[in-house]
Amino acid sequence: MSSLATKLTARFQWASSPLIVSAPMRVMAGPALAVAVSRAGGLGFIGPTIKTNEMLAVLKEASALTRKSTNLALPASKNLPVGVGFQLWSDDLETATQAVEKYKPCVVWLYAPKDVKDLDTWSRRFRDVSSETQIWVQVGTLAEVRALLKAAQPPDAIVIQGSEAGGHGRASDGLGLFSLLPEAVDLVAGRIPLLAAGGIADARGASAALCLGASGVVLGTRFLASTEAKINPGYQREIIRADDGAVSTTRTLLYNHLRGVTGWPKEYSPRGVINRSFIEHQAGTSFDELKKRHDELVRLGEKAWGPDGRTATYAGASVGLVRNVKDAGDIVREIQEGVRRMLRHEEGAKL
Amino acid sequence: MSSLATKLTARFQWASSPLIVSAPMRVMAGPALAVAVSRAGGLGFIGPTIKTNEMLAVLKEASALTRKSTNLALPASKNLPVGVGFQLWSDDLETATQAVEKYKPCVVWLYAPKDVKDLDTWSRRFRDVSSETQIWVQVGTLAEVRALLKAAQPPDAIVIQGSEAGGHGRASDGLGLFSLLPEAVDLVAGRIPLLAAGGIADARGASAALCLGASGVVLGTRFLASTEAKINPGYQREIIRADDGAVSTTRTLLYNHLRGVTGWPKEYSPRGVINRSFIEHQAGTSFDELKKRHDELVRLGEKAWGPDGRTATYAGASVGLVRNVKDAGDIVREIQEGVRRMLRHEEGAKL
Repeated sequence: MSSLATKLTARFQWASSPLIVSAPMRVMAGPALAVAVSRAGGLGFIGPTIKTNEMLAVLKEASALTRKSTNLALPASKNLPVGVGFQLWSDDLETATQAVEKYKPCVVWLYAPKDVKDLDTWSRRFRDVSSETQIWVQVGTLAEVRALLKAAQPPDAIVIQGSEAGGHGRASDGLGLFSLLPEAVDLVAGRIPLLAAGGIADARGASAALCLGASGVVLGTRFLASTEAKINPGYQREIIRADDGAVSTTRTLLYNHLRGVTGWPKEYSPRGVINRSFIEHQAGTSFDELKKRHDELVRLGEKAWGPDGRTATYAGASVGLVRNVKDAGDIVREIQEGVRRMLRHEEGAKL
Repeated sequence: MSSLATKLTARFQWASSPLIVSAPMRVMAGPALAVAVSRAGGLGFIGPTIKTNEMLAVLKEASALTRKSTNLALPASKNLPVGVGFQLWSDDLETATQAVEKYKPCVVWLYAPKDVKDLDTWSRRFRDVSSETQIWVQVGTLAEVRALLKAAQPPDAIVIQGSEAGGHGRASDGLGLFSLLPEAVDLVAGRIPLLAAGGIADARGASAALCLGASGVVLGTRFLASTEAKINPGYQREIIRADDGAVSTTRTLLYNHLRGVTGWPKEYSPRGVINRSFIEHQAGTSFDELKKRHDELVRLGEKAWGPDGRTATYAGASVGLVRNVKDAGDIVREIQEGVRRMLRHEEGAKL
């Protein structure tokens, strides 16, 4: 058993091994999903809100849901048994700090700073107001891991995101986890636990990530097809429908721009399911025309998603492995059981 | 234990579980490497030769080496205990058929046809002249797997190559094994065994691939750093030196063109370690100037490779995990032992 993985899981009293984490997907990973994942023995994350000040209400809701759950109402824990994610380039530090101080989530997951030094600033502020809150940082390259090891405020864990991941990831300098993760494991040399994200949707992927040396496993797309996800039914149906994820998804800024989202640092670009907007964009249709068609279809609601849809369907290449909607708790338990059947050690590589 | 994996390994009397395969790397995977891998209980492949008619001499040498090895001189086996790879677009079918008829390699590995129907033609010819020779086909997309399942001459196994792989792979529509491999496993639904290639360099990667559902594991770059590889010492040193494989390698046709290699079907492009040729190409130096600098340096021998080198250093993203030269047999044995320590079942996923 990897001692790093054991120590990481032990930080979360309700969690069982192997540590299964639901990703902090913006808006779609709300309190219901996060609490359901933690309740099942995983670690649930709440994603960034559209504006940072909405996070206070969201964490209040999570806190209330937590108190209703017998196995999460742990008197010994001073922390909210769910984590929360912030997008550094767009979230507001002062408001985020207030939310962390008030609700003390067990983990804060930091991503996409405008400047790498912002990670230190945010980490210091959160640690000042909530000393038991863990800081996790998500990266997609070895260079970022190297920088974190030398940081003034090194994180408590690093999430290594492979290029199969849905939503925002490295625009062009990322690859999958197969070589990246073990190379990162060798680089950190036991100093810090690594979690694996990107392309994992079932016990096979989770086991594979643990073999490569991860201390825990993060799933995003799989939880979009959970009962508890805050997702439009049309979007969720498309997650179930799409297959051949390596080809049916792509990284492009087009869908951000169609939705009016700008400002992401240039290192990032999101992966999503290809639909008519992208196909017509490739065929040379002007952006203005695409935007017009996009906005018209979005007004019709659910029809904006799907193969004939036009709006953003952020999803990872694992989308082809997601074929039904399940309760988040069942997703966690099935993966944990599958891993236990496959691996001699349930927590990370043992060589 | 996966019955597919068990059956696949059982086809090769000398092989032990899990099945570890050395890739048929063009020229560099010669008889010495292939025989050393099979002798250690793996399955060694001889790569394509520069001209197909050289394959007869190469297989003769492999045959002689085999007879010197006690554990490979198996009277019950009518087949040469090594496999051989052909590049369909460049190799000559008549000559290849003569070689297969005369030496009856246990497997022929087919790759990169100009037209997908050529796979049927080549498979039929080889099966006609050597009924016990297995046909393996290497692909990088789900669409290719789908086509193979419907082929007139379906292969005996399919090698799924993830985008981390070195040398030639899918130019633009490939991704890593994390989602691609389990999606392919679900698609073939037990009808045919799959092998995993791309980004695997040690027991961690091998175990991960088996968890994802592979029945065997293929390594290329790791065997470039073996005692038995037919490789220039400068090239081999660069394999050992290079790290951060996700960033230090890239797919580009530039190195093919600098070496005067043209004709690969447009679906393919090779991954190699970035050196001065690529950096200067990115900076805008003309091809003619790059070619001149390349050819001058190549005349100096070993110096043509390395960070200040200019010639093709085909390698996978796993290059950062390869840190020393080892005997091929030790590579096979260490991986097999590592997998056995990690997995409850040594042969493919068991869910």
